Amino acid sequence: MSNSQANSAPSAPSHNQLDTKAQAWSALFSEPMSDLVKRYTSSVFFDKRLWQADIAGSLAHAEMLAAQGIISASDHADIQRGMAQITSEIESGGFEWKLDLEDVHLNIEARLTQLVGDAGKRLHTGRSRNDQVATDVRLWLRSEIDLIADLLKELQVSLVDVAEQNVEVILPGFTHLQVAQPVSFGHHMLAYVEMFARDAERMADVRRRVNVLPLGSAALAGTTYPLDRERVARSLGMDGVCQNSLDAVSDRDFAIEFTAAASLCMVHVSRLSEELIIWMSQNFGFIRIADRFTTGSSIMPQKKNPDVPELARGKTGRVVGHLMGLITLMKGQPLAYNKDNQEDKEPLFDTVDTLKDTLRIFAEMVGGQLNPATGQKEGGITVNAPAMEQAALKGYATATDLADYLVKKGLPFRDAHETVAHAVKAAVSHQVDLSELPLAVLQGFHPQIEKDVFDALSLRGSLNARNTLGGTAPAQVRAQLARHRARLG
Amino acid sequence: MSNSQANSAPSAPSHNQLDTKAQAWSALFSEPMSDLVKRYTSSVFFDKRLWQADIAGSLAHAEMLAAQGIISASDHADIQRGMAQITSEIESGGFEWKLDLEDVHLNIEARLTQLVGDAGKRLHTGRSRNDQVATDVRLWLRSEIDLIADLLKELQVSLVDVAEQNVEVILPGFTHLQVAQPVSFGHHMLAYVEMFARDAERMADVRRRVNVLPLGSAALAGTTYPLDRERVARSLGMDGVCQNSLDAVSDRDFAIEFTAAASLCMVHVSRLSEELIIWMSQNFGFIRIADRFTTGSSIMPQKKNPDVPELARGKTGRVVGHLMGLITLMKGQPLAYNKDNQEDKEPLFDTVDTLKDTLRIFAEMVGGQLNPATGQKEGGITVNAPAMEQAALKGYATATDLADYLVKKGLPFRDAHETVAHAVKAAVSHQVDLSELPLAVLQGFHPQIEKDVFDALSLRGSLNARNTLGGTAPAQVRAQLARHRARLG
Amino acid sequence: MSNSQANSAPSAPSHNQLDTKAQAWSALFSEPMSDLVKRYTSSVFFDKRLWQADIAGSLAHAEMLAAQGIISASDHADIQRGMAQITSEIESGGFEWKLDLEDVHLNIEARLTQLVGDAGKRLHTGRSRNDQVATDVRLWLRSEIDLIADLLKELQVSLVDVAEQNVEVILPGFTHLQVAQPVSFGHHMLAYVEMFARDAERMADVRRRVNVLPLGSAALAGTTYPLDRERVARSLGMDGVCQNSLDAVSDRDFAIEFTAAASLCMVHVSRLSEELIIWMSQNFGFIRIADRFTTGSSIMPQKKNPDVPELARGKTGRVVGHLMGLITLMKGQPLAYNKDNQEDKEPLFDTVDTLKDTLRIFAEMVGGQLNPATGQKEGGITVNAPAMEQAALKGYATATDLADYLVKKGLPFRDAHETVAHAVKAAVSHQVDLSELPLAVLQGFHPQIEKDVFDALSLRGSLNARNTLGGTAPAQVRAQLARHRARLG
Amino acid sequence: MSNSQANSAPSAPSHNQLDTKAQAWSALFSEPMSDLVKRYTSSVFFDKRLWQADIAGSLAHAEMLAAQGIISASDHADIQRGMAQITSEIESGGFEWKLDLEDVHLNIEARLTQLVGDAGKRLHTGRSRNDQVATDVRLWLRSEIDLIADLLKELQVSLVDVAEQNVEVILPGFTHLQVAQPVSFGHHMLAYVEMFARDAERMADVRRRVNVLPLGSAALAGTTYPLDRERVARSLGMDGVCQNSLDAVSDRDFAIEFTAAASLCMVHVSRLSEELIIWMSQNFGFIRIADRFTTGSSIMPQKKNPDVPELARGKTGRVVGHLMGLITLMKGQPLAYNKDNQEDKEPLFDTVDTLKDTLRIFAEMVGGQLNPATGQKEGGITVNAPAMEQAALKGYATATDLADYLVKKGLPFRDAHETVAHAVKAAVSHQVDLSELPLAVLQGFHPQIEKDVFDALSLRGSLNARNTLGGTAPAQVRAQLARHRARLG
Repeated sequence: MSNSQANSAPSAPSHNQLDTKAQAWSALFSEPMSDLVKRYTSSVFFDKRLWQADIAGSLAHAEMLAAQGIISASDHADIQRGMAQITSEIESGGFEWKLDLEDVHLNIEARLTQLVGDAGKRLHTGRSRNDQVATDVRLWLRSEIDLIADLLKELQVSLVDVAEQNVEVILPGFTHLQVAQPVSFGHHMLAYVEMFARDAERMADVRRRVNVLPLGSAALAGTTYPLDRERVARSLGMDGVCQNSLDAVSDRDFAIEFTAAASLCMVHVSRLSEELIIWMSQNFGFIRIADRFTTGSSIMPQKKNPDVPELARGKTGRVVGHLMGLITLMKGQPLAYNKDNQEDKEPLFDTVDTLKDTLRIFAEMVGGQLNPATGQKEGGITVNAPAMEQAALKGYATATDLADYLVKKGLPFRDAHETVAHAVKAAVSHQVDLSELPLAVLQGFHPQIEKDVFDALSLRGSLNARNTLGGTAPAQVRAQLARHRARLG
Repeated sequence: MSNSQANSAPSAPSHNQLDTKAQAWSALFSEPMSDLVKRYTSSVFFDKRLWQADIAGSLAHAEMLAAQGIISASDHADIQRGMAQITSEIESGGFEWKLDLEDVHLNIEARLTQLVGDAGKRLHTGRSRNDQVATDVRLWLRSEIDLIADLLKELQVSLVDVAEQNVEVILPGFTHLQVAQPVSFGHHMLAYVEMFARDAERMADVRRRVNVLPLGSAALAGTTYPLDRERVARSLGMDGVCQNSLDAVSDRDFAIEFTAAASLCMVHVSRLSEELIIWMSQNFGFIRIADRFTTGSSIMPQKKNPDVPELARGKTGRVVGHLMGLITLMKGQPLAYNKDNQEDKEPLFDTVDTLKDTLRIFAEMVGGQLNPATGQKEGGITVNAPAMEQAALKGYATATDLADYLVKKGLPFRDAHETVAHAVKAAVSHQVDLSELPLAVLQGFHPQIEKDVFDALSLRGSLNARNTLGGTAPAQVRAQLARHRARLG
Repeated sequence: MSNSQANSAPSAPSHNQLDTKAQAWSALFSEPMSDLVKRYTSSVFFDKRLWQADIAGSLAHAEMLAAQGIISASDHADIQRGMAQITSEIESGGFEWKLDLEDVHLNIEARLTQLVGDAGKRLHTGRSRNDQVATDVRLWLRSEIDLIADLLKELQVSLVDVAEQNVEVILPGFTHLQVAQPVSFGHHMLAYVEMFARDAERMADVRRRVNVLPLGSAALAGTTYPLDRERVARSLGMDGVCQNSLDAVSDRDFAIEFTAAASLCMVHVSRLSEELIIWMSQNFGFIRIADRFTTGSSIMPQKKNPDVPELARGKTGRVVGHLMGLITLMKGQPLAYNKDNQEDKEPLFDTVDTLKDTLRIFAEMVGGQLNPATGQKEGGITVNAPAMEQAALKGYATATDLADYLVKKGLPFRDAHETVAHAVKAAVSHQVDLSELPLAVLQGFHPQIEKDVFDALSLRGSLNARNTLGGTAPAQVRAQLARHRARLG
Repeated sequence: MSNSQANSAPSAPSHNQLDTKAQAWSALFSEPMSDLVKRYTSSVFFDKRLWQADIAGSLAHAEMLAAQGIISASDHADIQRGMAQITSEIESGGFEWKLDLEDVHLNIEARLTQLVGDAGKRLHTGRSRNDQVATDVRLWLRSEIDLIADLLKELQVSLVDVAEQNVEVILPGFTHLQVAQPVSFGHHMLAYVEMFARDAERMADVRRRVNVLPLGSAALAGTTYPLDRERVARSLGMDGVCQNSLDAVSDRDFAIEFTAAASLCMVHVSRLSEELIIWMSQNFGFIRIADRFTTGSSIMPQKKNPDVPELARGKTGRVVGHLMGLITLMKGQPLAYNKDNQEDKEPLFDTVDTLKDTLRIFAEMVGGQLNPATGQKEGGITVNAPAMEQAALKGYATATDLADYLVKKGLPFRDAHETVAHAVKAAVSHQVDLSELPLAVLQGFHPQIEKDVFDALSLRGSLNARNTLGGTAPAQVRAQLARHRARLG
């Protein structure tokens, strides 16, 4: 059905091998693949999402082939025309993906040859599926990383927004989930901004190593055609060209490195989730998240469960599992391309999807959603400042301040620490806070204690006193807010 | 729209909360879920595959409720009728799965209530989705384990078939991928039978812990209705009843344990795959697998690649990744049910699918496919016995036999070992095998060496000599074959 | 120095190869190993802990060699004498472990030959280090599993003790860390007993597959000597003999399976730890653990941190990491033995140590330590029953009971659930518990509500009502306690 | 015993709390730790290796405290003197590490106070162990990364050396371990140079995020003393200061990120190892590695096993396990510091040790060792060029060249591919290479084939023809060699 265009080579077998046969390599094979084998080895039902990258890569390759005189200008025009047609077929849902054609590459190439004949058959000149798929995945991942960078910024902005509204809100800072020292809730939120900022930095590092061109490495050894690989890299906006053909087709470092960065990001999400869940528990009651991020129970009518943070915490396992899967996949593989590598895609795709969904939903859950009517964000987390402050009054959160107070009176720190331990013991036995002990009692622990000790022992006094770079004093938190605002544009 | 409250009564408020609202808990909630949240938290698009288990569990529950007088006989009949209808709708593809109804349980229950009214609303009496989903997954997994047991047997039979045909074929046994000692190719195949037999044993152990009933634990604390949980267990063919309601709803050990067993099984597959791939490499050429398990190259016209073993080796990573994901998921979760647990399903489902496909395809690839015309299996691996034997002649595979020969002459083993090392060194320098050294030269290493040494130095002599339990002598291999045939029925 | 016994073979080189040279295979090698290589490839500094198993295995092997006439009775006596001497040297710390001798096996064999001459050189007849190390690890692991079984029992007894003392103590049962329904604290403790009982069952399953004898498989192919492997298995108390020599030397399933079981056990520990940590947080204050399981802070004088549960939670990662490492190790290894396998030991050893320490410390931390003076256990967790009950009063823990109450009045469950949701909404807006709403108000939600509703709405009423198998009603908890006591002896 | 120096504060309790008691927090605690708990919670036996970083951090902290007037110049001098003494004690092995003092920090601080009295007690002013340990680990890891960077360079140089000597050596390039196309062995070696160059780049990225100062964050909230954190960062050569105190003490991203980079590097090592092992197998015989990197067998006298590459392949699992362990460790931890984090050290330390040993041994195994007498490297891998070339002649390695030949005659690539498949089929059936088919026979497949086809079909013709950027043509390989030489200095 596609023979009419066959014209260039006198005795060329002019049918479309991809059209009439199941495989591109069939002459050598004595029996067809079984259906089970087809299903087991085919990738088209998951790798078809690479179609845009596949077409972009093919167009850049064809443009270069024409520029180098390897194919004719009219072949190039045919390929462009065919690809435009295929693009619109896929976008409209009219493209028929065939399991028999195994993967996205052969599906598109077969259709191209149907549409434009021999020009389609010439497209694969000087390349192989080995370098083609590596190029596709890199192009696709690059654009996903750019989306992830945007989402990481959105989430940071949400956290910064909440931080800004809560600079003066006092939370009991925990270590070991025991009350440690009072901290600004804004300061606490900014700890997560630091984490997600590091994630963004790591993603940028990964992007540099993703955005390098394998195409032109062909099956494993390079090609006999006079390709201009740097031209193709430029057309595709890539930062450079893979310098070794064997490495180019077998390297999956970038997938592992991306998934490792995604795993770390999900670990941060899991930590925030754990805190949101604890804070929402009735015994804490520090925050509420909007109803639309919670669900109820089929049996207990009173329940509002923090499903979104719980699921996100659970999805950390999913992404980490993909990382482990990918590393196990690559361990001990000899060079160059092995079919094992086809297994790189599903974990990578699912990692990208999971990370994007999670970041998007967290940005909204934390910071709320823009109300177009008011221009304000609404529906982010609701902070219960009194509950936080109440909790901070438990647990002798200002004991360190008493030790510091004594150091300023001349005691070595270790002695001050020991003295305060005795004071805390007494307060515990009286079931009161340190600030509730009478001055005389405090002086019993150390004669230099004076009335101003009660400033040091107040939550706000403690907070304000931690006024060095990175500390929780509101002045420091505001300085950090300004830095983040500037950085996040 | 929510009824100004339930006016009570026996046959009463007959709207279907699940039908007209998005959620089963909505009265308490002030805003609907966003689409993103719905998509993030819903499970129906993957958990609908549990539908048969869900209906089976519901029917057993309803039967017991009726037997205990908790619901009426006519409610029971309504539920049975409704479930029959739903079963046929799902089987025919006519059932409409709704994202809004979140999961398989609410989808089915909502449809039931549409079909049979209040009886449907009574079905959830004394249970919760927490115990329901745990029951569904266990029922489903139990039946999958039974299928896997069958597939493991099929694969063992294939390996035994190949072993039987190759008892006398000599393969160079490797340690460190260096030629070690001659072994029977049949013996080598039976090593994998041992592995897959252990896998089957482990699966049976897992099944015992899977096949226990959580239903009746309700949300987490048990229920106020006089359920007969043991009756339900009996109806469902389960071995027992979970004895603690908190554990029943939060336990996912069985999923992890299954995935660990599946990972080990895939490790075995990966080892066999590695060997098949090496054996098919041109420098070995020990075997061929049928064309339908291989693919060619889009660029190199000569290629026949062992895609199936390579993919299987790669899929090991996938299953191992799921194991790691599931463990990470459960680490540090407080009791009882948390939404994190919803993330148990996709890795479990994919593990089952991957394992089943892999076992099925390996059984056929190794042992071939039944030709109904001949009643014979055809298309399994093709063994190149001369290539194996040729390779066994390299690498001084019978050096240990020379040492054993000397021990039988009275040398301590360590001295014999040292003596043979000198002989090997000489043979290496002459580029000949030990068996090619003249008797006089051999006697130079030890005077007690006599003419019969050449029997010990022959491949077949070496093979036959290893005639103790578990050894590679054909007599032993045949004994093992008989044992496996008896065991595998 | 060891030559005196050399007598059997006239011209035998009668020095001790293991004594005077670094390696057992040296004649063939043209250069010594570098120190770095020695350190990299040697295992003696971690595998020497296998010495008891190594000697036990050697003695059983020697006994059989003598019984089969492969070595003389006097050689056997020499070996026994030498091993007795080595045992006392190792026990007294006088044994000199040499890096040059690479591993525990060669260290012991070399010393044996030093002590008893040629008999020592004959010990290795019919075996190889490949089957020897597999035997040693199995013997060692078997005895460790037995210790772990004891510790699992101890921990279960501790939990049962605490459960027994707290059957009537009411804890807010959580799902999603939100208050769900009241549960007995004893019931909650017994959930962990279920988990650790499953762990014990899994360990017993693993033990069956560990306790099988590889010895007699020699390097990979069996041996030319007429060994009686079943005799050796009987002497060593093993359940059977590995039936395939290739599998016997290359199988590490048992190590992976054990580590998977240990990982699950640590996951349970991590869940208990998470709860202990949350319960100790000041906002909960449900329990205290004894001071000796906590540590303070170098800076905050008031701190008592639950270090032991936190560390245990962290050590879960360590064990899971070992599992991942072992699986990665075995993935894709061709048969038979490869040096990679040497890497099985350190993760296995560390898993055993971590698990044993953790179980022992948890048994004591939960249930206390026996005071020999009083015959009582002291110093287990201290339960703050009022704080638990107080917390249970938050969060509308009895809302389900109200729904069940309405169902008993004839409402379908779904309608009752909806009705109660409205009631909870009203109670929330008045900031009171359901039980604090006046009867008239409750009747506004449903006319059939009567005065007895307040029984259903009380914590204790709710608790007692969940009186079906596995439920939280004290009667059920006591039945379970009796079962566990009987089971645990 | 240490009171003599106590002088600065009038009424100071002048004993050394760290000296006379087990813990730094003891006043509050009513019972001592049990030995088991001590062993379980102490870290000194592994974290003492941080001692240099600990002292460096303390000296920089003390210098700043003095510069800011927080401690006196004489206290500063005392601290410097004491630390010099401690340094020499540790270096000489005379320092007594005490389990009771829990960790490296308290061991050193306690000894300091013994030596210099109150000045020692003042050192901890404005810091906590939480920020101290984070600082120590970062300082230590930074210097290890620098060592690793050197080792990565060494290994690259070794690979480049071998590549340079083997530019013209023809290896059968494999895909799917099937012969694909001829490649230069030098080109193949350079593929690994690309991998290790990426590893070095990643390590540099990690270093940037490691080299940031947590000190001054104190327990979690910053400190009340007027610290100059940037001064401390400058003294320690760090690139910046952690900007949020909560994040500073709880962040372990850098450890995970480092371990992920190390895992990738080990994956590359595992791939190289796999190839070395296959190449050394008798059926390949492509290379030999020097005897000192191999070991023999205790039973088979002829064996030389590639132990080093096998162990390295196995150790990949170990490092990957540590990565998994660290991620699991951090998953779901609430802020700020939790004791779980103590578990970060052993996996990190072992990862560093394993990676360094492996890189060092591979650099020498591949490229050899400098012979000081000759100034030449000796003892690297020995290449068997004839065996490689012989193997390349199997498997129709130049089939693609024939297809390319036909494309240059005007055939579309797909048609050429199909034509060649027929030719290969014919050659297979005659058991000859394509280049051994008579011209007439070749012309039967396509009339445009002429005599010059035999140039295309030769291995060297094929090699030379792949002369585009990144291809295997010797000219390209030499260009890459020049680039690497320039880059590696």
